[in-house]
Amino acid sequence: MPDAIEFEHEGRRNPNSAEAESAYSSIIAALDLQESDYAVISGHSRIVGAAALVYPDADAETLLAASLWTACLIVNDDRWDYVQEDGGRLAPGEWFDGVTEVVDTWRTAGPRLPDPFFELVRTTMSRLDAALGAEAADEIGHEIKRAITAMKWEGVWNEYTKKTSLATYLSFRRGYCTMDVQVVLDKWINGGRSFAALRDDPVRRAIDDVVVRFGCLSNDYYSWGREKKAVDKSNAVRILMDHAGYDESTALAHVRDDCVQAITDLDCIEESIKRSGHLGSHAQELLDYLACHRPLIYAAATWPTETNRYR
Amino acid sequence: MPDAIEFEHEGRRNPNSAEAESAYSSIIAALDLQESDYAVISGHSRIVGAAALVYPDADAETLLAASLWTACLIVNDDRWDYVQEDGGRLAPGEWFDGVTEVVDTWRTAGPRLPDPFFELVRTTMSRLDAALGAEAADEIGHEIKRAITAMKWEGVWNEYTKKTSLATYLSFRRGYCTMDVQVVLDKWINGGRSFAALRDDPVRRAIDDVVVRFGCLSNDYYSWGREKKAVDKSNAVRILMDHAGYDESTALAHVRDDCVQAITDLDCIEESIKRSGHLGSHAQELLDYLACHRPLIYAAATWPTETNRYR
Repeated sequence: MPDAIEFEHEGRRNPNSAEAESAYSSIIAALDLQESDYAVISGHSRIVGAAALVYPDADAETLLAASLWTACLIVNDDRWDYVQEDGGRLAPGEWFDGVTEVVDTWRTAGPRLPDPFFELVRTTMSRLDAALGAEAADEIGHEIKRAITAMKWEGVWNEYTKKTSLATYLSFRRGYCTMDVQVVLDKWINGGRSFAALRDDPVRRAIDDVVVRFGCLSNDYYSWGREKKAVDKSNAVRILMDHAGYDESTALAHVRDDCVQAITDLDCIEESIKRSGHLGSHAQELLDYLACHRPLIYAAATWPTETNRYR
Repeated sequence: MPDAIEFEHEGRRNPNSAEAESAYSSIIAALDLQESDYAVISGHSRIVGAAALVYPDADAETLLAASLWTACLIVNDDRWDYVQEDGGRLAPGEWFDGVTEVVDTWRTAGPRLPDPFFELVRTTMSRLDAALGAEAADEIGHEIKRAITAMKWEGVWNEYTKKTSLATYLSFRRGYCTMDVQVVLDKWINGGRSFAALRDDPVRRAIDDVVVRFGCLSNDYYSWGREKKAVDKSNAVRILMDHAGYDESTALAHVRDDCVQAITDLDCIEESIKRSGHLGSHAQELLDYLACHRPLIYAAATWPTETNRYR
């Protein structure tokens, strides 16, 4: 494991994690998931532990729903990384389309779905809907489908990462690593509202750009040790080695520096909002929005050192 | 002037530029603009020349409307760069609010507006509406108001550019330099439609990210000589000197390399769309969308070497 990314913001753990953990364990056990899927989201993977850092103030029901989404992500991520090895599973295209269908039909879908993974996705959508309401669940579902569109693209795009810049890699990466879904979860769970007034605000967009950049880069930083064995081209360290000609340790240090820089950028945005006389009441809405993402940044920098996922 | 940014794409000039030029000259002459405003959008500034490169296939009416928008931009940009020097003009906040008001009310507004610059904006909106239709004019107007929100922010943000990354600078810059307006103009004028099906597409977003990056960086590259005298903190060369510790010529070379890299990135995106079996008919829509921006890239790399604006 590389050195932890340090920063001053002090994170908090959700006090409801024990309650959420027990409900989470019984739900995933009852889904009859394939062994390889179940293994990565149970035991020492500490999935609820991650959600407890990202959503420190969520009630137990919401924390459970968010943990189930994280579990969907981890299963999907692992299937993608090891797709050649396990013939038993669906091909990427099949399970991507299956997830999109679940997101479109979960409210009316019939009996059990063919792949237990789709049952996990269906359970997640219904729990998010119950915990956050239909408007939130629909927006989250919409972003999940966008992420699936990007994931279908990753297979083609990986052939070009040797020639393209880190900036363009991150433009795609934020989609297929679901950071675009994450910023929507952050605002609904940690902010408790749609922040509709900020939808077209250029300062809100700059906040998201920094947060997703940190999310992508920190994930690449911590997962490099694991991913480089799986010959995964989709990693910022690999991009800097291929594209900027850095050796491995220099590239890893650069990615780490960019993570620390992203936090400085977020602090500057926050400070400049506080100093802006022209924003009026809009300033507090922007500050509340930015605050929704602080726990994610803390979790993205801390959780990888707690889970066995990146060992 | 720094060396021109070279690339293979062969640009075309709109054959209707002479007709558009004569209508443009008489319109701006009749607006009774302040001398300093009129000077930067007439004579050797070659505003219609720029539009003729960006919109090679537009009819004369559309080319005229697009030229008037470029004129609005240039006046606004100059007022911002030299705001301290000319007490006679409105303060930034006043003319920003004035432009927003024109965009909101131009269809119903009464007699002449206090500042002839607002008449230029009003004339531009009505010409865009006549040439492209209400849906396009409304979307363009919406983006203009977003750009104004970002311009109000630039004054605060410039205090932080010494501490923040080039990536975060570009997140803001694309707003207040109106590249977000430009990509909307490109699709309506060069593509002739809304491309609504691509609104949430992650590949379309990556295309825009590259195009606006090229637009911002190439403008900073060519205008550095002029802007460094005006102590403008809002320039990528300045950011790299302050933030990455480069000397001036190294920073300038880096910005130029990033421009050339952006073109490579766009070529890779185009090629990967062509190679994507899973996209079906969606592929042509994405290719058409990407093609809308090619003339802008050519113009952004060529026009600065033709106009007197950056001498």
